[in-house]
Amino acid sequence: MNQFYFTPGPSQLYFTAEEHIKSALKENVPAISHRGKQFQSIFQDTTQAIRDLFSLSERYHVFFTSSATEIWERSIQNLVEFESCHFVNGAFSKRYASIAENLGRKTTVIQAREGEVVNIESLLIPESCELIAMTMNETSTGASHAIDDIRKVREGFPNQLLSLDVVSCAPCLDIDYSLVDLAYLSVQKCFGLPAGLGVWIVNDRCLNKSEALLNKGLSIGSYHALPELLIKAQKNQTPETPNVLGIYLLGKVAQDMLKKGVDMIRRETNYKAAALYNTFENSEILNPFVKYKVNRSKTTVVAETSIPNQVIIDKMSEKGLILGSGYGKFKDQHIRIANFPTHSKEQIEYLSDELMKIAGE
Amino acid sequence: MNQFYFTPGPSQLYFTAEEHIKSALKENVPAISHRGKQFQSIFQDTTQAIRDLFSLSERYHVFFTSSATEIWERSIQNLVEFESCHFVNGAFSKRYASIAENLGRKTTVIQAREGEVVNIESLLIPESCELIAMTMNETSTGASHAIDDIRKVREGFPNQLLSLDVVSCAPCLDIDYSLVDLAYLSVQKCFGLPAGLGVWIVNDRCLNKSEALLNKGLSIGSYHALPELLIKAQKNQTPETPNVLGIYLLGKVAQDMLKKGVDMIRRETNYKAAALYNTFENSEILNPFVKYKVNRSKTTVVAETSIPNQVIIDKMSEKGLILGSGYGKFKDQHIRIANFPTHSKEQIEYLSDELMKIAGE
Repeated sequence: MNQFYFTPGPSQLYFTAEEHIKSALKENVPAISHRGKQFQSIFQDTTQAIRDLFSLSERYHVFFTSSATEIWERSIQNLVEFESCHFVNGAFSKRYASIAENLGRKTTVIQAREGEVVNIESLLIPESCELIAMTMNETSTGASHAIDDIRKVREGFPNQLLSLDVVSCAPCLDIDYSLVDLAYLSVQKCFGLPAGLGVWIVNDRCLNKSEALLNKGLSIGSYHALPELLIKAQKNQTPETPNVLGIYLLGKVAQDMLKKGVDMIRRETNYKAAALYNTFENSEILNPFVKYKVNRSKTTVVAETSIPNQVIIDKMSEKGLILGSGYGKFKDQHIRIANFPTHSKEQIEYLSDELMKIAGE
Repeated sequence: MNQFYFTPGPSQLYFTAEEHIKSALKENVPAISHRGKQFQSIFQDTTQAIRDLFSLSERYHVFFTSSATEIWERSIQNLVEFESCHFVNGAFSKRYASIAENLGRKTTVIQAREGEVVNIESLLIPESCELIAMTMNETSTGASHAIDDIRKVREGFPNQLLSLDVVSCAPCLDIDYSLVDLAYLSVQKCFGLPAGLGVWIVNDRCLNKSEALLNKGLSIGSYHALPELLIKAQKNQTPETPNVLGIYLLGKVAQDMLKKGVDMIRRETNYKAAALYNTFENSEILNPFVKYKVNRSKTTVVAETSIPNQVIIDKMSEKGLILGSGYGKFKDQHIRIANFPTHSKEQIEYLSDELMKIAGE
């Protein structure tokens, strides 16, 4: 039986990904030199497609890492001398703070309740904080900031670098990236690509900060320090031999998304998310985990289950529909459903119908 | 026209790689969770195949990173508090030393002449050095240590951690890994796989050292610190969402190599290398760059050219044979030919014949 993955990353490949992998093999993409013209052209095409998809101005640079986890580490190394501030709305935003602590930085952690996000109206952040880390969409619980929270944080804290985790929501949310200094994602979520590639968007403020730390004699890492990434990116290259196939595939899928239209993708995302939450509301055994509607993720749709979640996961699996279990302490109590661009309206409707059948038994 | 890549990494895919990629797509490998049983099974299969191929004892652990470049950085972070010593026989061994300096460590650099390796008989290494970095096979120039050099360094310096770069020679050389404390490679060389995955082999001495640094209150990084890698590896997992497809493919190709027999691969490597060097010796326009036969790489075969190397590269390209140019300062003066397991005897013989035709004009 065909299986279709609704797990929140890695997830089902984007529906064009397999064809692009086959084209890449025909074109010998995995064999080309990362110092040659063919790679430079791939690098340029991919970064341009990301620029277009995210409407980035010239002040922003697009760099590649191996994961979003790596970007947590690199951003602290390059942008924080003493202290960072982390809005924690789940396990992944918490891990960013832990990484800053591993690297010897002081952290201010502002913790939201489970299934909620930090209240932006009443923030107290020490002026000594150099970077504010905000996780737009918590993949662990589906607790998502309202889009307008970004503007409020930016206006409230103009002196801090504002870091936005868009790992499991970009490009499905209409975010104004000019409000943030850095943003990052990994390709196995909404882009529906094999894991092993992170995308790091930074502006000149970030580059200036990393150079300032370097000029103070501090270590900002080595091959993936921002100045190193920039020098190579200006030649459409990377400091190390990168995941060439991953960069090629990201460019192709980003171009496919541009052709389809990012507005269309966002409208479909909204429609499908509404269908899933509607199912939860009408189900006897499912309930949206995130209480406030404004904070319910569009792309990582999470329900509490009143029966053991494994029963639901197993029944859906029998239909070829692979759902995610809960994360961490919610492992046995939640189901998590990815609503990424590769998950079609028809598939989400089919999944909703099947979920309702369990509910009705 | 079909093209066949003899570039020294990335290079032609291993001849079974494309089939394994297709199987991976059929099995939905890119969509599976890196916290699930299917991934744990892949992790176990791949690490076991690497253990078998490298004849590793139980004292050794196999970890995955995104590149060998990353391992340069991680090994310094985790294993060197103050000072490392680097044998420099080309651009890549030199870059390892630069990375140690970027991270604020003192380095002792022992520099060989171009195309040579450090003379092991007359080494002076400060006892304060914590790690000795040796590059078995310099991909930039083809200057390769004799196998016995490893034993000599080990016997001469039992107190230091011995780090062996086998990026572009493993598993084609018969190395006794029990002589070293850490070794590393990237998969786009002899394993003929898409770039974006590094393999890091470490023993318990390395783990003890990183824990000692951590206990002193020093930062050893975060998600890819050795203790973090170990905790996850003991569950057949990785700290971050890794290059799942890359780990799967590495396991499959390593198993293919085990089936063929690593001794057979090594015999073929020797035969093909001899054929190429014989061609250079008999050519009017090519000359082995590495003067001493004992130091001539088996896997990265480098010739100086007496005519502009681009002429040779272009003529070979017309036949579909893609050669590497020189590296760094030798960009226009060398050709570099990968002699990896995917390059068959027949292809190497054909390439040799075609090279001789240019020579004869």
